[in-house]
Amino acid sequence: MGAVDPPSRSSFPGELEIIRLIRRTVERSPAERVETGIGDDTAVLLSQPGARLLATTDLIVEDVHFRRAWASPFDIGWKAMAVNLSDIAGKGGRPLWALVGLALPAPADPSEVESFYEGMSQAAAPHGVAIVGGDTSVSPRGWFVNVTLLGEHLGVPRLRSAAKPGDAVAVTGTLGRSAAGLAALEAGRARLGAVRPETIEIVTSAHLRPTARVAEGRWFGAAAGVHAMMDCSDGLATDLGHICRESGVGARVELDRLPVDPAAREVAGVLGADALSWATSGGEDFELLLTCDPASVDALRDGLGRATGTALTVVGEIEALEKGVTFLGTGGLPVAIPAGYEHFSG
Amino acid sequence: MGAVDPPSRSSFPGELEIIRLIRRTVERSPAERVETGIGDDTAVLLSQPGARLLATTDLIVEDVHFRRAWASPFDIGWKAMAVNLSDIAGKGGRPLWALVGLALPAPADPSEVESFYEGMSQAAAPHGVAIVGGDTSVSPRGWFVNVTLLGEHLGVPRLRSAAKPGDAVAVTGTLGRSAAGLAALEAGRARLGAVRPETIEIVTSAHLRPTARVAEGRWFGAAAGVHAMMDCSDGLATDLGHICRESGVGARVELDRLPVDPAAREVAGVLGADALSWATSGGEDFELLLTCDPASVDALRDGLGRATGTALTVVGEIEALEKGVTFLGTGGLPVAIPAGYEHFSG
Repeated sequence: MGAVDPPSRSSFPGELEIIRLIRRTVERSPAERVETGIGDDTAVLLSQPGARLLATTDLIVEDVHFRRAWASPFDIGWKAMAVNLSDIAGKGGRPLWALVGLALPAPADPSEVESFYEGMSQAAAPHGVAIVGGDTSVSPRGWFVNVTLLGEHLGVPRLRSAAKPGDAVAVTGTLGRSAAGLAALEAGRARLGAVRPETIEIVTSAHLRPTARVAEGRWFGAAAGVHAMMDCSDGLATDLGHICRESGVGARVELDRLPVDPAAREVAGVLGADALSWATSGGEDFELLLTCDPASVDALRDGLGRATGTALTVVGEIEALEKGVTFLGTGGLPVAIPAGYEHFSG
Repeated sequence: MGAVDPPSRSSFPGELEIIRLIRRTVERSPAERVETGIGDDTAVLLSQPGARLLATTDLIVEDVHFRRAWASPFDIGWKAMAVNLSDIAGKGGRPLWALVGLALPAPADPSEVESFYEGMSQAAAPHGVAIVGGDTSVSPRGWFVNVTLLGEHLGVPRLRSAAKPGDAVAVTGTLGRSAAGLAALEAGRARLGAVRPETIEIVTSAHLRPTARVAEGRWFGAAAGVHAMMDCSDGLATDLGHICRESGVGARVELDRLPVDPAAREVAGVLGADALSWATSGGEDFELLLTCDPASVDALRDGLGRATGTALTVVGEIEALEKGVTFLGTGGLPVAIPAGYEHFSG
C-alpha cells in the first residue's frame, strides 16, 4: 500500500490507468523539496537540509478491505495503523506521527469508537508513534478509515527504484499466512474441523491484526548492501513487479525457495487450497521485500537475526532485462502465477 | 476543520463526547516531539530542533459535505484542498505537501478522477503545494475524500489556546457568503429570480470553490500582536467558542460590527432569509478569526491591507470570565444566536 498505489485487491478495473492519470495530473504541480513523490511506499520530503520526512496514507473501507462480521473495531483500528507502519518500515524509516480520518454511520457507538482508537493506539505505541490529529464524519454507509503516517529517515530511504542487476531478492519471515487467515474466515469453523485451533488463531490473527516489520525495516534502513526495499502488502508477485518496473529491471524467483508459512500449509491442506499461491499472490503478509548486493546476504541474514530474531530468505535474483517477474518451478521451468488475489471481487 | 475537530455540520449527535473520548484514548500514547496534538487546526510537530511541522487532515464525504448534483469532481477536489489550506493558514504556516485518499464507486470514470485532481492541483498550485502521495479504493457508496496537508512554521504557530483577556477579536474579509451560496443552490434558479446573476455566481463560487486565506495567514504568522488564530470554518459562533474553551476565556461580539457579506445580504433579501445568522453561524467562509493586542489593531489592519488587499474587522473583545461567546445586539443587549448551521440534517 502507500503513496498512490498500484492496483491491489481493492482496486477497480483499470486502476493502473487511473494511477497513471493521477501521476500525470499531479506532476504538473510544483514539487519543492520533494525527493520522491507518487510511486513508492511513502513520499520522501526534505523537512530540513539533510533530514528526510516520510509520509504515507492508506484507506481502509468496509466491505472492500474488511468485513464487520470478522473484524472488530479494535481490529480495524489496529490494521489501519499497521498497514501504514509497514509502509514506513518498507523505506527503512522511523514512524513518528499519525493523523486519522474516520467516517462511520450515525449514530456512532462511543464504545466502538473507543475500541477503534484503542486498537490503533496499541498497534502504534510499541513504535513510539503518537496520534496527533484527525477528522471525523458521518458516513452514509459503512466505515471509512484513512490513516496518514509521518516518519523520518536520517540516512538514505530504501526506494523501490534502487534494485540492480545481479542483486539477490529476499523476504523476511514467511509468506501466505494472511491469505490463509482470510480463507479460514471465509470457510468458517465447520469446514476447518481438522485444523488445530492454535493454527486457526495464528492465521486469522495475521489477517486481522498484522504486525508491521518496523524494527526490521529500521535495521535494513541503516545496513550496508541493501538496495531496493518495500513492504510486501499486495503479494510477492505484484510487489516484486513494482520494484522491477520502478528500477527498470527484471526478476527471477525460485518457487522452491519461498518461505511458505507452515500454518498456511496446514490450512491449505484441509481446505484443498494451494498454499504456494497464497505465498506468491495472497498479499497482506506485511513482510519486507528487498534486493541486496549478493555479497552482503550472509551478513544481512545474520545481523537481522541477531538484532530482531526475524529470518531472511533469499528467493531469487534481479536480472538486467526489464521483463517483469519470472517464477521458476522445480526443474527451473517458468511457471504461471495467479495475479493478485481478488478480495471481495464482483 | 482540522485536527479531530469539534462538531461541525457533518457531525453526529454526541460528537463532542466522541471527540473527548478520542482525545482521552489517544493521549495515553507516547507523544515525542509533539508540541500540539489533537484540539487545534493542525498538529504542531518538531521535525528538527527549531523547525515546526504542521499537519492537518480533513474528510469530505458525498451527501454529507457535498452533493454531486451541485459539486463537480473539479469542485470536490478544489474544496478538499482548500479546507486543508485554510487550516494551515489558521496557524500562520506555509503549506507544502498533500496526501490524498480517494474512494469512489467502481467503475471509476477516468475523466472524473482527472477533473478531481485537476481541481485539487489548481487550488494547491498558487501556494506552491505539491501532491506527494495518496491511496485509492473502491467505495461501496459515494465519494470519500481525505486530504492530509503538511506545512511548516519557522516561527511560533498561532494556537487556539493563546487568547488573552482584553484582546480584540477580529475577522478577515466578509462573513455569510458561503451559507448564502448553499441557500442559493438549495433554492434553485427559479426562486432566485430577483437576484443578479453576478451575485449568484459570487455566493455559489464561495460555497463550491472557497479560497483559503493562505497569504493572510502567513502574514499574521509573522506579525507582532497576534495571539490566538484559527480559520473560521464552522461559523463565527462555534469557532470563537473553540478559542474561548481552549484559552479558558470568554468573548463578547457586537453584531453591528460584523462584516456581513453584501452578496449574502442580497440573496437573503430575495429568499426572506437572515444574512446575519449566516454570518454568525453559517460557516465555511474560511476567513481567519484572530485575537490580538488591542494596541496592535491599526498596524495589523493597515499592514494586512498593504500586504494582501484583504480587510480586517474588529468585531468584539476577549473577556476574562470563561463563559463562552456572548453576542450583543443594537443597544448592547445579549442576543441568542443559532447553533452551527445544520448541513443536510436529518
